[in-house]
Amino acid sequence: MLSEAGITGEELALAARNHGMPLEALRYDLTPAGLHYLLIHYDIPALEAESHVLTVGGAVEDAVSFTLADLAALPQRTETVTLECAGNGRALLRPRPVSQPWLFEAVGTAAWTGVSVSDVLEAAGPHSDAVEVVFTGADRGMEGGVEQAYQRSLTLEEARRREVMLATHMNGAPLLPQHGAPLRLVVPGWYGMTSVKWLADISVVTEPFAGYQHEQAYRVRQSEEDRGRPVDRIQPRSLIQPLGIPDFFTRGRVVSPGEIGMTGRAWSGFGAVVGVEVSVDGGETWHESRLRPPLAEYAWCGWDWTWQAQPGHYRVGARAEDVTGRIQPLEPDWNLGGYEVNPVHWVDVEVR
Amino acid sequence: MLSEAGITGEELALAARNHGMPLEALRYDLTPAGLHYLLIHYDIPALEAESHVLTVGGAVEDAVSFTLADLAALPQRTETVTLECAGNGRALLRPRPVSQPWLFEAVGTAAWTGVSVSDVLEAAGPHSDAVEVVFTGADRGMEGGVEQAYQRSLTLEEARRREVMLATHMNGAPLLPQHGAPLRLVVPGWYGMTSVKWLADISVVTEPFAGYQHEQAYRVRQSEEDRGRPVDRIQPRSLIQPLGIPDFFTRGRVVSPGEIGMTGRAWSGFGAVVGVEVSVDGGETWHESRLRPPLAEYAWCGWDWTWQAQPGHYRVGARAEDVTGRIQPLEPDWNLGGYEVNPVHWVDVEVR
Repeated sequence: MLSEAGITGEELALAARNHGMPLEALRYDLTPAGLHYLLIHYDIPALEAESHVLTVGGAVEDAVSFTLADLAALPQRTETVTLECAGNGRALLRPRPVSQPWLFEAVGTAAWTGVSVSDVLEAAGPHSDAVEVVFTGADRGMEGGVEQAYQRSLTLEEARRREVMLATHMNGAPLLPQHGAPLRLVVPGWYGMTSVKWLADISVVTEPFAGYQHEQAYRVRQSEEDRGRPVDRIQPRSLIQPLGIPDFFTRGRVVSPGEIGMTGRAWSGFGAVVGVEVSVDGGETWHESRLRPPLAEYAWCGWDWTWQAQPGHYRVGARAEDVTGRIQPLEPDWNLGGYEVNPVHWVDVEVR
Repeated sequence: MLSEAGITGEELALAARNHGMPLEALRYDLTPAGLHYLLIHYDIPALEAESHVLTVGGAVEDAVSFTLADLAALPQRTETVTLECAGNGRALLRPRPVSQPWLFEAVGTAAWTGVSVSDVLEAAGPHSDAVEVVFTGADRGMEGGVEQAYQRSLTLEEARRREVMLATHMNGAPLLPQHGAPLRLVVPGWYGMTSVKWLADISVVTEPFAGYQHEQAYRVRQSEEDRGRPVDRIQPRSLIQPLGIPDFFTRGRVVSPGEIGMTGRAWSGFGAVVGVEVSVDGGETWHESRLRPPLAEYAWCGWDWTWQAQPGHYRVGARAEDVTGRIQPLEPDWNLGGYEVNPVHWVDVEVR
């Protein structure tokens, strides 16, 4: 299937800069620097931690601003969060929505440290008729013919969840430029488009925000005419840590026969993963794996299953189900923009 | 041109894990963690710094082995080096060699710290009939149908260059997993395939090494029948730091009219860059830029040129020439494997 992809040059240019997490990095609880997935809409801006100022205004009692030193003086929290791009899996669709051509790897888990958004909002005092909070990044570009800064909003209620935070550190180190240095939003449980990087402004508004990234992009639509619904929380997904050794070009796996410890990770933004099933026969039969506890409420859990592998060719897959009953489909469900595409992770394995 | 690429699924799978340096990172003298290009033939192996052992043997007086603590006790050196993938530019070719589909970004500059290979060889004492040194990584995979560990050799003379080193640190921090942790070879001036990551063994040999990465891959060949010549030192290249703002999808640039400070970087593995010329009319006329001194002998230099930009559409390019007279071609020179493809970096710019 993949060999018929016919990826365009524009998609390739995106794939050359935005990258996934090589799946062997599933072995790490926290994804090491540089292996966490990246999706950068425009350019990485050049911001200085010393001079960066976050402004907080709009429908508030007191417009306020914060340097990084001001933020460091507020109560600090650390949240371990699995982030995933809303477009992960897009390149599996036929016909293929043309944008960043993700396969399976647009994910990563990090420990983010910073302050609760609610503490920053509290300092400004939202008006009683406030309904949403708009987060604006320092990155600018053209998208859909419109010049814009990257912006996303949350309802006031979502923004006030204690774990929704402004992060200055990732895995104990100051943010790297590509992950939003010196300040970014992190919204646990939601796809990554909401976690605005290079955060410059927070604005409280009294009408629902109708920006490009809400109205045009990041909607699950069946056609151009369909208004669809917004993308928000992360659908369940499981990934298989690579078995044996790879072929350089096909990335297919070659494994020796015998007892094979299969392992991987699974997560959902809707609640705990309650099961991961494994198939080694392309989905005809499924086996319940052993789940390990998640690292944190909004982070992935590990799973393990032992395969007694005989020589042959196999289509190996894993599918997760979460506490709400959401379960990965066997094959991808199509939509116009290629969002929330979370089919079973199928891998071709040769045992020999 | 690019929109006709027709990249296959296998190429896409490679592009999703191996990534270039987003070109806005040309602003940094040293490429930050996670932005340096990556080309990983097989999987990132799981090695522990505490227990890793480098063995040194073959045609030597005394086979020896080194822990990382042993290496830390030897004289330390730091070299600032620009590394580039030998396949950078491959996806610009028509017909396109099918492998990792690089455009322009497979480059990065880092300060590597470790020990000279010559000190390690000295401890073992190569026999008088030794001709080459084979470096073996801990990463294994299938390539061209052959199961193999990643291996490359150098002549004894090259290996003894003082700046050819075994690195344990990159930009002052222990190596990241994807850059060869805990130990890698760094060969300044050569394309990246020679700088073997996850280094496990050094073996002195009395016959020229004929491994897969020398005999099959990494040769400049015009046809399957052509034996060609090996890829070794880095051909000159210059890159333009992105102007103005990007379009998300096309990555084309939009710039306001007026005085525009153009800047970029240039390098060559054959010797100093002596000139970078800039064109804003697709190569009809060229303007000499101002060169800044290189960071180090084997690292990139900066260049600057001021453009008085009027509204319109432009094809902007930069080309480097080195002290040996090597100069970038206007359009890519084709070869079977897509190596050393170093044409002028052309960028479409709209001034408005």
